[in-house]
Amino acid sequence: MLIVMERDCSAEQLQKVVEKIQKMGFKAHPIPGEVRTAIGVTGNRTPLDPAEFETLSGVESAIAVTKPYKLVSREVKQEDSRICVGPVTIGGTGFVAIAGPCAVESEKQTLEAALAVKDAGAHMLRGGAFKPRTSPYSFQGLGLEGLKILALARRETGLPIVTEAVDDESVGLVEEYADMIQIGARNMQNFQLLKRAGRSKRPVLLKRGMSATLDELLMSAEYILSEGNYNVVLCERGVRTFADHARNTLDLSVVPAVKKRSHLPIFVDPSHGTGIREKVGPLARAALAVGADGVIIEVHPDPDAALSDGPQSLLPGMFADLMRDLGRMAPLVGRAMER
Amino acid sequence: MLIVMERDCSAEQLQKVVEKIQKMGFKAHPIPGEVRTAIGVTGNRTPLDPAEFETLSGVESAIAVTKPYKLVSREVKQEDSRICVGPVTIGGTGFVAIAGPCAVESEKQTLEAALAVKDAGAHMLRGGAFKPRTSPYSFQGLGLEGLKILALARRETGLPIVTEAVDDESVGLVEEYADMIQIGARNMQNFQLLKRAGRSKRPVLLKRGMSATLDELLMSAEYILSEGNYNVVLCERGVRTFADHARNTLDLSVVPAVKKRSHLPIFVDPSHGTGIREKVGPLARAALAVGADGVIIEVHPDPDAALSDGPQSLLPGMFADLMRDLGRMAPLVGRAMER
Amino acid sequence: MLIVMERDCSAEQLQKVVEKIQKMGFKAHPIPGEVRTAIGVTGNRTPLDPAEFETLSGVESAIAVTKPYKLVSREVKQEDSRICVGPVTIGGTGFVAIAGPCAVESEKQTLEAALAVKDAGAHMLRGGAFKPRTSPYSFQGLGLEGLKILALARRETGLPIVTEAVDDESVGLVEEYADMIQIGARNMQNFQLLKRAGRSKRPVLLKRGMSATLDELLMSAEYILSEGNYNVVLCERGVRTFADHARNTLDLSVVPAVKKRSHLPIFVDPSHGTGIREKVGPLARAALAVGADGVIIEVHPDPDAALSDGPQSLLPGMFADLMRDLGRMAPLVGRAMER
Amino acid sequence: MLIVMERDCSAEQLQKVVEKIQKMGFKAHPIPGEVRTAIGVTGNRTPLDPAEFETLSGVESAIAVTKPYKLVSREVKQEDSRICVGPVTIGGTGFVAIAGPCAVESEKQTLEAALAVKDAGAHMLRGGAFKPRTSPYSFQGLGLEGLKILALARRETGLPIVTEAVDDESVGLVEEYADMIQIGARNMQNFQLLKRAGRSKRPVLLKRGMSATLDELLMSAEYILSEGNYNVVLCERGVRTFADHARNTLDLSVVPAVKKRSHLPIFVDPSHGTGIREKVGPLARAALAVGADGVIIEVHPDPDAALSDGPQSLLPGMFADLMRDLGRMAPLVGRAMER
Repeated sequence: MLIVMERDCSAEQLQKVVEKIQKMGFKAHPIPGEVRTAIGVTGNRTPLDPAEFETLSGVESAIAVTKPYKLVSREVKQEDSRICVGPVTIGGTGFVAIAGPCAVESEKQTLEAALAVKDAGAHMLRGGAFKPRTSPYSFQGLGLEGLKILALARRETGLPIVTEAVDDESVGLVEEYADMIQIGARNMQNFQLLKRAGRSKRPVLLKRGMSATLDELLMSAEYILSEGNYNVVLCERGVRTFADHARNTLDLSVVPAVKKRSHLPIFVDPSHGTGIREKVGPLARAALAVGADGVIIEVHPDPDAALSDGPQSLLPGMFADLMRDLGRMAPLVGRAMER
Repeated sequence: MLIVMERDCSAEQLQKVVEKIQKMGFKAHPIPGEVRTAIGVTGNRTPLDPAEFETLSGVESAIAVTKPYKLVSREVKQEDSRICVGPVTIGGTGFVAIAGPCAVESEKQTLEAALAVKDAGAHMLRGGAFKPRTSPYSFQGLGLEGLKILALARRETGLPIVTEAVDDESVGLVEEYADMIQIGARNMQNFQLLKRAGRSKRPVLLKRGMSATLDELLMSAEYILSEGNYNVVLCERGVRTFADHARNTLDLSVVPAVKKRSHLPIFVDPSHGTGIREKVGPLARAALAVGADGVIIEVHPDPDAALSDGPQSLLPGMFADLMRDLGRMAPLVGRAMER
Repeated sequence: MLIVMERDCSAEQLQKVVEKIQKMGFKAHPIPGEVRTAIGVTGNRTPLDPAEFETLSGVESAIAVTKPYKLVSREVKQEDSRICVGPVTIGGTGFVAIAGPCAVESEKQTLEAALAVKDAGAHMLRGGAFKPRTSPYSFQGLGLEGLKILALARRETGLPIVTEAVDDESVGLVEEYADMIQIGARNMQNFQLLKRAGRSKRPVLLKRGMSATLDELLMSAEYILSEGNYNVVLCERGVRTFADHARNTLDLSVVPAVKKRSHLPIFVDPSHGTGIREKVGPLARAALAVGADGVIIEVHPDPDAALSDGPQSLLPGMFADLMRDLGRMAPLVGRAMER
Repeated sequence: MLIVMERDCSAEQLQKVVEKIQKMGFKAHPIPGEVRTAIGVTGNRTPLDPAEFETLSGVESAIAVTKPYKLVSREVKQEDSRICVGPVTIGGTGFVAIAGPCAVESEKQTLEAALAVKDAGAHMLRGGAFKPRTSPYSFQGLGLEGLKILALARRETGLPIVTEAVDDESVGLVEEYADMIQIGARNMQNFQLLKRAGRSKRPVLLKRGMSATLDELLMSAEYILSEGNYNVVLCERGVRTFADHARNTLDLSVVPAVKKRSHLPIFVDPSHGTGIREKVGPLARAALAVGADGVIIEVHPDPDAALSDGPQSLLPGMFADLMRDLGRMAPLVGRAMER
């Protein structure tokens, strides 16, 4: 159920509605919009009667939400959400580029990559300190030390940081050292982690699972919003199919599909989405063209020496060229790429 | 085996090499390039000895081809192939738009669509006269009558025609009435049909099967080339996956992958690739951005009345807007869209 | 629409109903059952009014068929279909084993395999004379010569023959020399071929395409039945997925799903379904356990020398062991394996 | 690296080898076998020199392990592992049936189901207290209260309990109240959870992720073993494909593939694997036939009232029939089903 308040409703009227919802045993989620506020109701197992709310003062209408997801739905919030990460706004008319190494390996490597992507025009820095790896014997990241290096890179470049968290403890650390929490594809349905991220004050970058449907991705986002954190950015990073010419099959048509069903911004990760350096540029351009709000790209000063995902990392020069291309194309699809 | 001739080799020297190959019981495929001619050798089950050929006069080198496909391979021909369909060139620096209704339903509907797509700047007209349909009880196309309508539409608009053939008989008819033969996704491994198309003088548009790997697509093209028809254009039209937000999953990363392995042009079909009208535009823009040589798009003057694939057909006005967008973006990716 | 005749309706009454259907411009398919005859109506685009038929004499009821497929549907025919191939009955309480080499390579190899599988208890012989191969440079089968070898093997062993046809011409030859026409997975949606097989007097073994849904498989069978050939046996042979531990993913749950929706028998091909010799036995046992009507298994006297699919062919001794296992298990699932 | 000790090596010799490994900075995993002990070495990034170990007294040989997984590999341990859960042994010649409701909903429902499955011959009881659900608004399980009900059901029936844990806290509770920890498909690559389970004394039932390759499943098991818990049972529960006739595509050919590569037992879950009650029986029989070590099946006294997965739950009577069938088939595949 979504309760749409009148344009000029008072704070008191809003509060009364919230209280009524709570008294009924449900949860109220006030969603301030540009012209009016709506209140999402969750927790009810069966449909509610609109009349229960439409008779309250200040309420314009009460609308049943037909999708299994509610707070992430366009039905509930028609305007695109804008998510602020430090000075960067995601989800508006800008096209945002996040770049950096797959993993934080050392201060030198991270600073070198950070300065290079900053010079090339990136808006944010990525880099993994906690790395979920298929093998227990692979490099698992530097952990806290990695976070400290990322924080240093932010001081040096001014770029906000996004980095992955993999459990309660690492969410706490990422909250402290970084600007945005990444939930990786393998954890897209780690609901305990999603709930923890939902209680964080930091915005969340939620990657689509390798075989997640769009509805499942949106439901995972709903877990985060339903805990009170509305600052979620979705990210397509390739799905698993029979196709063997790339590491994953990048599903770009999910971008307009997200735009139709949800108000949340959607990014594309052409690095994991293809797994092959030479395809990153073409697919990043395609991501811009298809309507994505940004890209997240792996850049490494020396990919051959990378401890993970070297073959898909761009060299700094390739990334700079790509940024130039994207900057030129952006206005043609109604976007801007200033920093 | 690929035999690369010297730049200034004579026709006689070339002929001697061809004869030697034939005498060994194999097939010779002379492939004239811009600066020199190469000869593909097929039919051998085991590797050949380069020395057998390198000692012939006029031969520069004999190179083992490591891929299962040969004639379609970049190893064999480094320059991009350019395929001429009437006045239209596919595979150069142009970006080619083929458009028209899914099926030819009537003279009126087809002419209306043809004039509309011509006005909007399309380079070629599409329309099915032989329709392979999942159900035997669905509209199967107008057959010969449909081809005659397409020929009429060409006379009215000057646009070359591409239309699907489904068996020997229809290949013969399509050759007679149209400019380019389409082999549909369901027939991508109908090898009898591929061989028949390989003996045609008309260029072929070969669509990727619903679960075909890139190698399988290239091998199917190889069937056509190995029969002597080198004018093949590949087409990505979406693959079948678990994803349910679109009819198929459009695999745009296959475009740079084709470019790397083969000299053949590659198109994208965002209409079948998504199955949803509102996604056709974004994915067509993405196809241009990712490096495709063209798009093939369904346009219907009255989609709601269409006998097949109405929900994915653009209205003429939407198509005109899309063509404008593509025309503006093309120069930024090194393409032109004049007609 | 399905028109169910009364138990004791006369031939004349039946004929009157057929004529009425034809006069309305539709096609009538009388389907004799054990206790009564039904008539399937196809060709109508919109639902028919049951009253039109229920008032005719001899008609018990007229039932709208809700599935896109009609003649193959359980709604239309409730008893399991039994298909006779020479002395062999498929679809009853027997469990039928078809075995033999992937391809007919020589008289010696084929006779050796035929005698071996006969000795082991196989009911029918398989062997390809027309081989659809991914590469134009692979062995494509012996063609007519192969069919003659198969006919010879039948004379020597008494086993009925099933072999693949790939186009009109080969259907004609297979009809002449063999007992059952196989339509391969790659041709499951080659509708011209399906229609040709539908006009044949020979029963058809229709393999599921590599990414065909169950409905698509049933619709392809419907093409054959709608042309008048009701003797169709379906065959699951593995679908294409991301899983890489086997050549294909054998989808055994399709067996009970077919049983629910259709009266046609369903086979399983564990050889193509797994592509790995050592998995053929376990999956053949599973096919029996899950309710399949039979299996089709590749057996080669010398797999390492096979011209195609050697790694998935059983040695004659392995096949004999498997037949013994299946024979012991069959009674436990209500089947018999006598010959 | 795997170090195989001599048959009659002393505890002291073993200890010396372990110490040497630890001094080199690696981890030693002694793996006692029936006739001799082996020591797995993990933690090395580069291959080790066998000579370093083969010169130590008591060492028979040191073998490089070629697979990315080590401790789970057949190379490292040739005999099938046997996992004891209370009085039940998994992985020997027995075929083990775990059954019970999807979720623990109440004491009454759980006890009723527990008694019914016990009467039918089940060896263990399943039931979810912590339910990972796609939607945050779905029933999430009774938590600790559910575990207490399960413990009560064990007291009443004597059946050991397996139940899912979803995070550190719930692992601790499941360890306390139940006999075996289940890691669900969605958490197969929640590596923090795997490591926690690896430090548990309880055996673990690890379900294959929805799009996990066999190698990934084995690597996830490796996470558990590498922390010291060698009691892992794998479980196939269907993978995600395009096929739409069942909830998932049950990949039975993974069973012989696991048997080839690993010594760990493998179960099949035909309830989640198909999602449809009427398919559970056929696929459970197929699981036995294909070589699985057991099945885990959902049984609910009143499926229509179930809070989750009702449509795939068997009624107690159907389960009893199935157990009878399995009991009769088991000896034919070399298994026994006594309790």
